[in-house]
Amino acid sequence: MKCRRFSVALLCIMHYALCIGMSVTSPNGNIELKFSVDATGRPVYEMTYKGKAVIKPSFLGLELAKDKHASMGLNENDLMDGFSITKEETSTFDETWKPVWGETATIRNHYNELAVTLAKVFDIPKYTGDGTAPGTFLEPHQRQIIIRFRVYDDGIGFRYEFPQQEDLNYFLIKEEHSEFSMAGDHTAWWLPGDYDTQEQMTQETKLSEIRGRMREAVNWSNSSVAVFSPTGVQTSLQMKSDDGLYINIHEAACADYATMHLELVDAETKELTTQLGGGSNAYTPNPKHSPYPLPQPFTFVSHLTPDATGLKGAMQTPCETPWRTVMVSDDARDMLSNNLILNLNEPCKLEDTSWIHPTKYCGVWWEMIVGRGSWHYTNDYPSIHLDQIDWTKVKPNSTHKANNENVKRYIDFAAKNGLDEVLVEGWNVGWEDWANMWKRDVFDFVTPYPDFDIKMLTDYAHSKGVKILMHHETSSSTQNYERHLEDAFNLMNKYGYDAVKTGYVGDIIPRGDHHYSQSMNNHYLYVVKEAAKHHIMVNAHEATRPTGLCRTYPNLVGNESARGTEYEAFGGSNPDHTCILPFTRLQGGPMDYTPGIFVTKLSEWSNNTSWARITIAGSLALYLTMYSPLQMAADLPENYEKFDDAFQFIRDVACDWDDSRYLEAEPGDYITVARKAKGTDNWFIGGKCDENGHESVIKLDFLDKGRQYDCTIYADAKDAHYETNPQAYTITKKTVKAGQTLKLTEAPGGGFAVSLIARNEK
Amino acid sequence: MKCRRFSVALLCIMHYALCIGMSVTSPNGNIELKFSVDATGRPVYEMTYKGKAVIKPSFLGLELAKDKHASMGLNENDLMDGFSITKEETSTFDETWKPVWGETATIRNHYNELAVTLAKVFDIPKYTGDGTAPGTFLEPHQRQIIIRFRVYDDGIGFRYEFPQQEDLNYFLIKEEHSEFSMAGDHTAWWLPGDYDTQEQMTQETKLSEIRGRMREAVNWSNSSVAVFSPTGVQTSLQMKSDDGLYINIHEAACADYATMHLELVDAETKELTTQLGGGSNAYTPNPKHSPYPLPQPFTFVSHLTPDATGLKGAMQTPCETPWRTVMVSDDARDMLSNNLILNLNEPCKLEDTSWIHPTKYCGVWWEMIVGRGSWHYTNDYPSIHLDQIDWTKVKPNSTHKANNENVKRYIDFAAKNGLDEVLVEGWNVGWEDWANMWKRDVFDFVTPYPDFDIKMLTDYAHSKGVKILMHHETSSSTQNYERHLEDAFNLMNKYGYDAVKTGYVGDIIPRGDHHYSQSMNNHYLYVVKEAAKHHIMVNAHEATRPTGLCRTYPNLVGNESARGTEYEAFGGSNPDHTCILPFTRLQGGPMDYTPGIFVTKLSEWSNNTSWARITIAGSLALYLTMYSPLQMAADLPENYEKFDDAFQFIRDVACDWDDSRYLEAEPGDYITVARKAKGTDNWFIGGKCDENGHESVIKLDFLDKGRQYDCTIYADAKDAHYETNPQAYTITKKTVKAGQTLKLTEAPGGGFAVSLIARNEK
Repeated sequence: MKCRRFSVALLCIMHYALCIGMSVTSPNGNIELKFSVDATGRPVYEMTYKGKAVIKPSFLGLELAKDKHASMGLNENDLMDGFSITKEETSTFDETWKPVWGETATIRNHYNELAVTLAKVFDIPKYTGDGTAPGTFLEPHQRQIIIRFRVYDDGIGFRYEFPQQEDLNYFLIKEEHSEFSMAGDHTAWWLPGDYDTQEQMTQETKLSEIRGRMREAVNWSNSSVAVFSPTGVQTSLQMKSDDGLYINIHEAACADYATMHLELVDAETKELTTQLGGGSNAYTPNPKHSPYPLPQPFTFVSHLTPDATGLKGAMQTPCETPWRTVMVSDDARDMLSNNLILNLNEPCKLEDTSWIHPTKYCGVWWEMIVGRGSWHYTNDYPSIHLDQIDWTKVKPNSTHKANNENVKRYIDFAAKNGLDEVLVEGWNVGWEDWANMWKRDVFDFVTPYPDFDIKMLTDYAHSKGVKILMHHETSSSTQNYERHLEDAFNLMNKYGYDAVKTGYVGDIIPRGDHHYSQSMNNHYLYVVKEAAKHHIMVNAHEATRPTGLCRTYPNLVGNESARGTEYEAFGGSNPDHTCILPFTRLQGGPMDYTPGIFVTKLSEWSNNTSWARITIAGSLALYLTMYSPLQMAADLPENYEKFDDAFQFIRDVACDWDDSRYLEAEPGDYITVARKAKGTDNWFIGGKCDENGHESVIKLDFLDKGRQYDCTIYADAKDAHYETNPQAYTITKKTVKAGQTLKLTEAPGGGFAVSLIARNEK
Repeated sequence: MKCRRFSVALLCIMHYALCIGMSVTSPNGNIELKFSVDATGRPVYEMTYKGKAVIKPSFLGLELAKDKHASMGLNENDLMDGFSITKEETSTFDETWKPVWGETATIRNHYNELAVTLAKVFDIPKYTGDGTAPGTFLEPHQRQIIIRFRVYDDGIGFRYEFPQQEDLNYFLIKEEHSEFSMAGDHTAWWLPGDYDTQEQMTQETKLSEIRGRMREAVNWSNSSVAVFSPTGVQTSLQMKSDDGLYINIHEAACADYATMHLELVDAETKELTTQLGGGSNAYTPNPKHSPYPLPQPFTFVSHLTPDATGLKGAMQTPCETPWRTVMVSDDARDMLSNNLILNLNEPCKLEDTSWIHPTKYCGVWWEMIVGRGSWHYTNDYPSIHLDQIDWTKVKPNSTHKANNENVKRYIDFAAKNGLDEVLVEGWNVGWEDWANMWKRDVFDFVTPYPDFDIKMLTDYAHSKGVKILMHHETSSSTQNYERHLEDAFNLMNKYGYDAVKTGYVGDIIPRGDHHYSQSMNNHYLYVVKEAAKHHIMVNAHEATRPTGLCRTYPNLVGNESARGTEYEAFGGSNPDHTCILPFTRLQGGPMDYTPGIFVTKLSEWSNNTSWARITIAGSLALYLTMYSPLQMAADLPENYEKFDDAFQFIRDVACDWDDSRYLEAEPGDYITVARKAKGTDNWFIGGKCDENGHESVIKLDFLDKGRQYDCTIYADAKDAHYETNPQAYTITKKTVKAGQTLKLTEAPGGGFAVSLIARNEK
């Protein structure tokens, strides 16, 4: 299928007279965006929803960095103030487009736009040539930027655009200062702002409580921790106001730009010298001495991820920042059905997308995560030099799980249960000392361990209609990965792999860089683009949080970029975790959450004492509530075989959709969603709740009127509980039709899953 | 031709009883090396030549860096002191090997070796697991290193070796502390220690005068300047003692390790807080707080080039440092004939070297350097995005020199004059904004400008027996170069290019890295290895100074890595510059100096007022005195045509040799060398002097006895002078034979060149 626009775009450009203040409303009028320039020439915007303040007047601007090159002496002149408005354009846009895969068959992109051109005139000393001192006479210069707002019925996006111009060709970003001034002390669901990990538990506090919570919010034993401020948080940041507004701040289309964090800046953070945290991962932020005034209380200011030198980005005009997004509604369900971030991304750039397909998979993975097997093949070397080992002569350790026999077992399981692919981690040499060693040449991505017969196994899988899903752990040694990328993808093409799970565990090499910097964001997208040339789908783990780039490059079928199921083996995640992620992490794109744990007490089959905070019915619900075109059945085949009647739902459930209806939602409490399977009349419903349980009332008004559906309900049993009785579920079958109501009780940490198979007769 | 060893290696291993002090002498006894461990367990070595102190007792060791990963907590335990000797081995080695190309047909590698195993036992707190505090009980650990000395008749090399062991698998280097304690206040020929440029003029001062000279020694208008200390200097460092010893410190086989500088460390540098230099390139070194005692006066301490985080290297055992070399003689000529650095490198690792060939070339280069033409094709864009330009629609600037007509002119010139190749710079798109813009995607290395018809031109060249020499300017955007490397080399193979000149102008991308860091040294060698797979020779400019790796990878046929002829167009270099480089820069490998400027006053044909400080006869001498298998005739064809009788020498001179005899030498004053052309009986002699002129007396005792030679002498005319009369030369032909003497007068900034063609009859 090719990407294409569905309906005719309507574009109207209207010219207003220049003025100091201007406003634009959303198509239905619910949202109003005002823009002006203050007395010092600083750009200011504000935003309301149904007349309520969402963003109070907030400044916009970028602080630029000095560069040692004389020809760039211009650069230290900030794009913060001194602006005047030279042009404003408004327009309306309305089109409906078809995603290659998604929650709905079509997506409407309807907004009113305001583009303001701002000019800044300034003098700089003329460079006189000998390099030892600045010149003495002043030369006038002018810089223009455009701030573009798109105002939707459910939120806004804005970005900075930098046209190519004589006095702004290249510049270095010291910091972006986009402010988001909140109207009150909202409740926020937040992760500590961090340059290298997104895998902490979400905190729920008032904005005023962030500083006090920060130290305990960080799991300092995570070796990737690089927090930068006691009030720094990540996006997507979900908030709720005391008067019932749901507000979400994130970004869209972050491609060759640093990932944004948010920081509540007050006098204390502005002159920050204190050291955060304890333990070996303590991080000392640099003191800040911004010359610009303090923002209002409860104001978030953008904080970009730095490069190794502390700079936030190098830009060449014409260019633009990612979109900064503010979604808002008085109905929590609108936060989940919102398509603003996808809409703000560019249309699909791949000519041919026929090779991209939603995928259900299992894999050689969970048993190693839990600790019953190993990725590595031998225990005989304290460290490995890939070019110095003859693997045929190495003594195996007998714990290596990516072996022919075990992989065949998974292939058989996938074939038997209609799963499309089998992920195999640990198939390639280098796992003996792969992480956190600052080891550049850690993997070659083409050499299998001796007990993984790549030809035999791919032939075997293909003979059963199954594919193997490639795994490329990079250990964050990105230079090494890029050096081997073409050979690695050629190997995949040779053996018929069509998807790769990439991983970025550990510190970035080159040293000093961070997971969410401009250069790393460029790297992740480089890999996606190179993969597309090979017709390979990418599922990147530990990469930056997504921002909707999957619209433009739909072979980016998944990301981890948050605390996934693996943490259930590392001490566990709170039961409400999966009732928060759809409001936060999933805003930018699907997550490979690897759901489906049935045997939640890991000690039942391993030495691991950790346990998953979920019931079996809750696990089934995640295939609906955690939208992804890539869904794993993460537990072991033998564990599923013990609960084969419940596993029937995983066999049945789709992972691509023509329609989705969010029926109930409250951040951190519960989410209920109904989805219509792609190209069918069948619906699936999932409900997931937190540790308090939930009474779900589902009105089946989305079904075809008059039609009968075979309904199977996988529900928590009456005494089910995520801790004390997680495997208690009931399976009920009945016939239902439109207009009926299902009342389902979700146990603490539980949920439910429903399949509704349309009968042919109406 | 394949690399092979020539004679039988003799290896004797003798075991001594363990003792505190030990010594080993060179094969002829002239050099003695003593090693011991002092009372605090610090390794100490000293070195004498004919009984005179060369290196007074000097400490050895490495300071390690903390790493945040708990598993690497060991690492902060330095390898500086606390050592005891556990083993010592001595051996003798003598072999003669054949270089693929070089100054002599064979090279003898004859040394006595001392390898000392040192063990350090220490306790570290046991890590107790929660990441918030160190544990409380101490656990014993042991680390072993080997310091290996090779003692030659003309110098020593030593290195640190790190065997694989339980307590030393990975480590980060904070600094290497190899000391070189000089016996007096020697005269030194030095360049300011700098992380990013080697293109300054050499300074000649006493050691005690380095600090006072540093500020003026740096050309601060060079945008690459990154000096680090007022007493930091580069290697190879040539010195001369008051009692006539010539001493040179450099390194050998620096592959995956940071390039070494030397620093005279005293109380002032140890607590360094002052800012060096002026202008936009000022560099502020970090304060130093080494816990180790100050060394003796006149002691150099190694200072490695840092990565972006300030660390000096990441190591995995088994591994070793490069060799640190000290060459010594009481005859300056021995410093030039010395093969110690090549001998300390590994033998050739390329199976097939038949495709590697010494090369004489001209090129589309000097006219752009001088300013009469441009690398770039259009002036119409303030900046270029490679993926957004349709080059066929771009307006040409008419100054672009890599155009079909001009390139054909150079091809014709090369064909007519027996030159092998024609370098063409500026052939590929991207030169409009290529340097110092922090622009990552600056070149693609495969797309020619519209006026460079790559197929037509390579066909045309090949039809005349000439090749085009590829040019890859990377702008130091190494990630971009590596991404395109395979495509770029494939293009070269497709069109029959067999050599590439690479360039690394400007700041390294990723930002914060330096030209001479571990990662960049890895990059340069990566390119050489990848090129070898494509049978491509590499001539890298602005890369790190060579350390003899061309023995191991002889397709590395050249490097710039110093101030080359281009600076004659940027204000000029001192006349003694080429009388210093063979003692310093050329120790590690050949330099692509691009000699042969005949029209030295550039204003004669351009608007450039700079001028080359050399006579025409001096220019001819450089083809002998600046040894390289790659020799350019750098001036314009039309300039050579004005002096075609002198150009005859460039047509005649060889660039590969069976024998070389350094006849006269004094650093910074004069160098005279006779070389026997490969596979012939013909000799060529060159003499080059400084601004004071030189009377050269050449005894022809190296010629075949009784044989007659047709001798052509290209000499400065009586009134020749590099400034006032550079084009005054005489050409004299006569017949000579062995035993005769030539007396030749070199003008200020001049020299001479002699060809001696053996007659067939004896």
